This record gives sequence, C-alpha cells and structure tokens, in this order.
Amino acid sequence: MMKQCLENVRASVPLVHNITNYVTVNDVANVLLACGGSPIMSDEPEDVEDITSICGGLNINIGTLNQHSIQGMMRAGKKAAKLGHPILLDPVGAGASALRTDTALKLMEELPLTVIRGNISEIKTLAFGSGTTKGVDADVSDRVTEENLEDAVRFVKNFAEKSSAIIAVTGAIDLVSDGKTCYVIRNGRPEMGKITGTGCQLSGMTMAFVVANPDNKLEAVAAAVCTMGLAGEIGWNNMQPGDGNSTYRNRIIDAIYNMDGETLQKGARYEVR
Amino acid sequence: MMKQCLENVRASVPLVHNITNYVTVNDVANVLLACGGSPIMSDEPEDVEDITSICGGLNINIGTLNQHSIQGMMRAGKKAAKLGHPILLDPVGAGASALRTDTALKLMEELPLTVIRGNISEIKTLAFGSGTTKGVDADVSDRVTEENLEDAVRFVKNFAEKSSAIIAVTGAIDLVSDGKTCYVIRNGRPEMGKITGTGCQLSGMTMAFVVANPDNKLEAVAAAVCTMGLAGEIGWNNMQPGDGNSTYRNRIIDAIYNMDGETLQKGARYEVR
Amino acid sequence: MMKQCLENVRASVPLVHNITNYVTVNDVANVLLACGGSPIMSDEPEDVEDITSICGGLNINIGTLNQHSIQGMMRAGKKAAKLGHPILLDPVGAGASALRTDTALKLMEELPLTVIRGNISEIKTLAFGSGTTKGVDADVSDRVTEENLEDAVRFVKNFAEKSSAIIAVTGAIDLVSDGKTCYVIRNGRPEMGKITGTGCQLSGMTMAFVVANPDNKLEAVAAAVCTMGLAGEIGWNNMQPGDGNSTYRNRIIDAIYNMDGETLQKGARYEVR
Repeated sequence: MMKQCLENVRASVPLVHNITNYVTVNDVANVLLACGGSPIMSDEPEDVEDITSICGGLNINIGTLNQHSIQGMMRAGKKAAKLGHPILLDPVGAGASALRTDTALKLMEELPLTVIRGNISEIKTLAFGSGTTKGVDADVSDRVTEENLEDAVRFVKNFAEKSSAIIAVTGAIDLVSDGKTCYVIRNGRPEMGKITGTGCQLSGMTMAFVVANPDNKLEAVAAAVCTMGLAGEIGWNNMQPGDGNSTYRNRIIDAIYNMDGETLQKGARYEVR
Repeated sequence: MMKQCLENVRASVPLVHNITNYVTVNDVANVLLACGGSPIMSDEPEDVEDITSICGGLNINIGTLNQHSIQGMMRAGKKAAKLGHPILLDPVGAGASALRTDTALKLMEELPLTVIRGNISEIKTLAFGSGTTKGVDADVSDRVTEENLEDAVRFVKNFAEKSSAIIAVTGAIDLVSDGKTCYVIRNGRPEMGKITGTGCQLSGMTMAFVVANPDNKLEAVAAAVCTMGLAGEIGWNNMQPGDGNSTYRNRIIDAIYNMDGETLQKGARYEVR
Repeated sequence: MMKQCLENVRASVPLVHNITNYVTVNDVANVLLACGGSPIMSDEPEDVEDITSICGGLNINIGTLNQHSIQGMMRAGKKAAKLGHPILLDPVGAGASALRTDTALKLMEELPLTVIRGNISEIKTLAFGSGTTKGVDADVSDRVTEENLEDAVRFVKNFAEKSSAIIAVTGAIDLVSDGKTCYVIRNGRPEMGKITGTGCQLSGMTMAFVVANPDNKLEAVAAAVCTMGLAGEIGWNNMQPGDGNSTYRNRIIDAIYNMDGETLQKGARYEVR
C-alpha cells in the first residue's frame, strides 16, 4: 500500500546523501524534509565516503556536473555499493552533451543502481547510448501519450530488465517498472513543468521512500512519484489569483509536508500493467 | 512594440545557457520559465560547448566565479561566438576585486558581447578599467538620478558605441542603449534591492528576449528591463500585511509568469533619448 | 539592549563576506538583506582576499566544502584576521566526516574566530576533537534540555573560554556564551527544523549583528539568535491552512524583514547565567 510507504518514511526519517546540482538543491533539501526524510549534501571526493556511510541511500544527479564532482559521484557510489545502500541516478541532460551522456552511462556501468529516474529523452539516451535531448526537458517527439503508451510501457520494462534497475520515467504520464510490472501513473499537472527542478525534487524524495521501504522498492518508487504528482494537484488547487510558478513551487512542497497516508492512498491515480 | 517582444518569447520558448552564480541560480531558472523561456545551466569546461550549441543564447554571470568556471565561460563564449549566438555579460562585483574586474574585461575583449547588464558601478568599472564598487551593490555616489541623467545617458551611449554591445544599466532609473538610442526606463520599486539577485534574474530573462527577437535586440533588452520593473510594481501591489522580501521575491516571479503583452505595453514607463 | 543591536544593523548596513554552502546560500543572502545587512559571496582563493577587504566581517560555513573552497576559507580568514575583521565559523556536519571535522579544527587553530555557531553535536565535536554527529542535525542524545541545562551551560562556558570565541549552540534551547556569561534563549519553534538552513541563515545574520555592534559582541550574537527564534514564532503565527515548510521558510525571512527593535525587545525570551 502506498499509504504505508509514506508512513514508513515519516516513521524512520531516512538520511539521504545527495550529490546534486546547485540549481535546485535547496528545493531538494526542503522536499526531503517535507516528506519526512533528512538531507545531507556533499560532493567533494575526500568527503563523500564518510558522508554516504552514515546515510541510508545515495541520490546522484548530474545536472551541473563537473570534473571534481564526477569523481565524488563515483567514489560515493562505490562506497554505497559496498555498504549495500540503494543508489538512484538522475541523468539530467543526458543526450544534451557528450559529457553528460558518457558520465551517466559510466555510472550505470560501474554502480549497481537501484533506481534511474529521468524524463523519456534522458532514459532513451541511456537505453540506446545516444540521444536527442532538447536541453533538460523532454523532446516533444519523445513524449509518452495515451497513443504510444503500450510501446512506452514495453520500452520501460525492457530497459528495467536489461539494466537491473527500477526505471522511473516521468512526464505527463509516469511509468515505473522493475522489468516485470509497470505502474502507469496519471497524477500531476502540466504547470509543474514551469517550475525548475520538480524532477530533481522527486529524485531526492524517491530515495527517501526506497530507504524506508527496503522490502518493497518498486511500490516505494511508485508511491514517491504519486506523492509528487498529487502534491502538484493539491498545490494547484491552493493557488490564488496572481500566483505563478514561484508560489506554485512553495505550494507543492507545502502539500508534501502536509500529506498523510490516507490522502496519498485516495489521491494516487495509477494502474499496474 | 514591447508587447511583441514578450509574445515572441512565449511563442518561441528560447533555450538559454546560463553560467551563473550559485547564489541566485534557482531564481534565474524560475524567471526564465516564468517569462516563457527554458533554462539550462552548465559551467564545466568539458560540458559547455555541447550545451551552448543546442541553446539560442548564452548568459554569463561572474557572481561566484572560480578558476574552473572562468575557463567554462571562455570556452562557452567562444563556441557561442562561432555559432553566432548572442552573449550577455553580467559583471557582478566588477570593481570589487581584481579577479572580477580582470575577468569581466577579458570576457569583453575576447568575446563579441551582445549585451552587458550591470549596475552603474560595475558598468563604470568596465568603461574605465577600474572601479570603486562597494560589494555587489552600486555605490551611492554612482546612482543615476534625475539630476545627473543627461550625463549618465551620454556615458551609456558612449560606452555602448565603444564596446559595440547594448549596455543596460539598472538601478532607480534604468538606461538601455546601443550607442545611438537610449531607453530611459522608470519602472520598478526601491524594495527590489532588498531581494538578492533581481539583477541576475533580469540578465537571464534579457537573454531570452534577445534570442526571441533577433531583429530587434535593443527594444528586446528594453522590454526585458520593463518587464522586470513592472513585475516589481505588480508584485508589490500584491503584498499582504506581514509579507517581506522573501514573499516579494515570489510575487515578482509570479507577476512575470502572469504578465501578458497588453499589461507590459500599458505598464512600461520609458522615454527614448 | 537587544533593540539597539538590531537598530545598529539597520543603521550601518554591514557588508558580510560569506563562504557558505550552495544548499542554503540564497536564503542566507535574503536573510542578510532582511535584517538590514548586505551580503557578498565569494569562495575562489584568488578572489577572497579582495572581497573580504571591502567587507566588515567574514562568515565561513563548511556545509558543502571542497578542496578549492577550503583554500578560499583559509585565505579569506587570514586576510580578515590581519584586518581585524570578526570571523564566524559554522561547522556544518563536523563529526559526520573526517574532512569536515579536520577542516573545522584547522580553521579554529589557524584563525582568531570571533564566533562559532552550530548545533550541540557539532560544537561537542570541536570541543572534544571527534564526534557522533548524525548527518547535519543534532543527535537526539546530545540535545540541550531543561534537565541537562546546567551541564550544558557549563560546557559552553568552558569551551568559550578555552577557544577564546563566543560560542552559540542552537537547538530547542539556545546557549550563547563568551566564557563568563551565558545567555539561555528560549525563542523559536520545533518546526524550524523542518526547513533546510535556518542555522546557516542565523550564522550569516549573526555576522551582520557582530559587525554592527563591535563593542558589544556577546549581546549582538544573543540578539541575532533571539531575532531568528522570534521570527520563527511570528512566521508560524502567520501560517495559513495548507501552508508547510516551504511557505514557513518565506514567512520567517519576511518576519525578520519586518522586525523592529521594539518587537525584538518585547519578544526576546532569555535569561543570563
């Protein structure tokens, strides 16, 4: 039950190590606190092994990667792997530059990733080894729609099986699969795309859900995705005349802060394929 | 028409590459989304050429420059120049340290800048090669006022001609000139100075306006400046008892998000000299 | 009088140099503006000496330290010391990694710190040279409570005397001591712990208070701590149904922006031991 996944986060306060971009890092921290987790950020190669050792899981986001932080990602990832901690990769902009694509592929190759979360363009880049990403947003031609849903579900299942990771593709329709089962999730609002970093925020929160639900990782990822989308709906309902994307950002984080298990259980809109 | 400048941004969704400081970067991204653009951030020298190639323009801000990101600025700038993309320089703190002054002067020398946007202290530093900047805010002695306006307009026109860039000096009165014409803009509120990064936000948005209006760059810059100032006025009118600078920041971004061409056209307060 | 401490900040607009983490840096800047100060951020070793020279004080926060910024902290600190500027250390995560603990201890050793502000776990780490910090939040076992208050006051006084710095330990009960006197402060709300960076914000603001009150540093630090806690109370009173930690963050900064000396004087809840 998704209800239980969220309640487990609040009960256990999972500590999540984030190596993430400096654009959206503050929102990632506040979303982790809002859902009941506890964030810590560290990207210095000499610091990351100690930090990841005291955490329950590692969230790697390549949104503003640099040569130094790439070393930090690799060292943190190897340490987390050795400790059996779950690792999430958010391949921001994979397909938009060779460095991003190569780094994401190398992290996939060298680390036992538990979850990969991105938009469809980024995930296709990882699946096919190259891409057509337009900046950090998904290409229109790539979008998951009701029309191409069956193909998209098959693609995500196949990539999950091939990569041995839970794949979470987020967009108008979200897909979460472990290779056997695929959650098709229809929560969320299109206006969330007008806020920077809702994807990054979701990645941080997803790691908290995975740490708090070690025996039920697939549902935990799906529950995190539903929580984010539902918070987007609740936040939108709380908008007042004159409000725009900056206030909407606050409203979404507030909605996560106030969400209880019952609300998530009732509001989650998904089917399992 | 300024109306058209804003509508062109919303219609074309220009992708802007930002190498900007980590203090205000999240607000820069959200302002770019609010006005209808799309932001991407990258400062790693090995990453910036690919990223700037898929964008329409480059926004360089030296607010928290470091040796590594300076290399990124230079490589991104040279690539953007080769591709004929517009480049904006925001010389944050030029005059406050030798490294900032030197870096800004070097970027001016080596890159065909399309726009330079800063406060009067920073712009004077670039024009005269040295400065008296007090931190990142304009010196009181340097402020553009109704009393010294004629001199200030002459200075900005001369520097625009000499530098072959559109110069945007922002403060209580904003001046935007290409060397021949000078927009004198009186939008905005003094309380905007109590929010960190309204200048950085404007620089990002200005690049979106320039990319979307390639045949009308001077008016595009002036329209971006008016949009920011007018959003400051609208945001202020939406303030409630107990609100302060943090809420004001949100209100301004929200006002940009909700601004349409008509509102801008009616609210823009400027004369052309 | 605390009233006077705040009014001196507003009257003198102290310029504060911050070398701080990229997670909470935007909030630190906005809090400095809210209380009447002026922030500048710079961590590049080649930039920091010039920047710190034009400022009144230096705020060093190791929250996302890296090899490059550690050099910046040291060079800025030595320059500030030479100029007689006050220096504050915020040892974020000391005890959580060897690099953080060692860096904090080295900064203590090599710089004449004016203030050290942290949670009880971090401060104990500095006092004993090693620690048990759980991430960046205080260990439950370490919390200052009414039960262990007498011991805690003695510990803080001793460490202040030994380190020749004003020690500010913040948590449910805040302690501020110069070795002789100890302010025991009971402002604040537990929900402030659900916002990232209230400690970082307080460190920035504390430096503004110290710069503006050079002859009264102990009371200045205590006044900054009371201002933050009282803003947390006022901000909480302004919360509406549906608001959460993101809006609360804005409300607290807004409350600092609107706070006057009278309000602080009446609202500060402290005793001196």
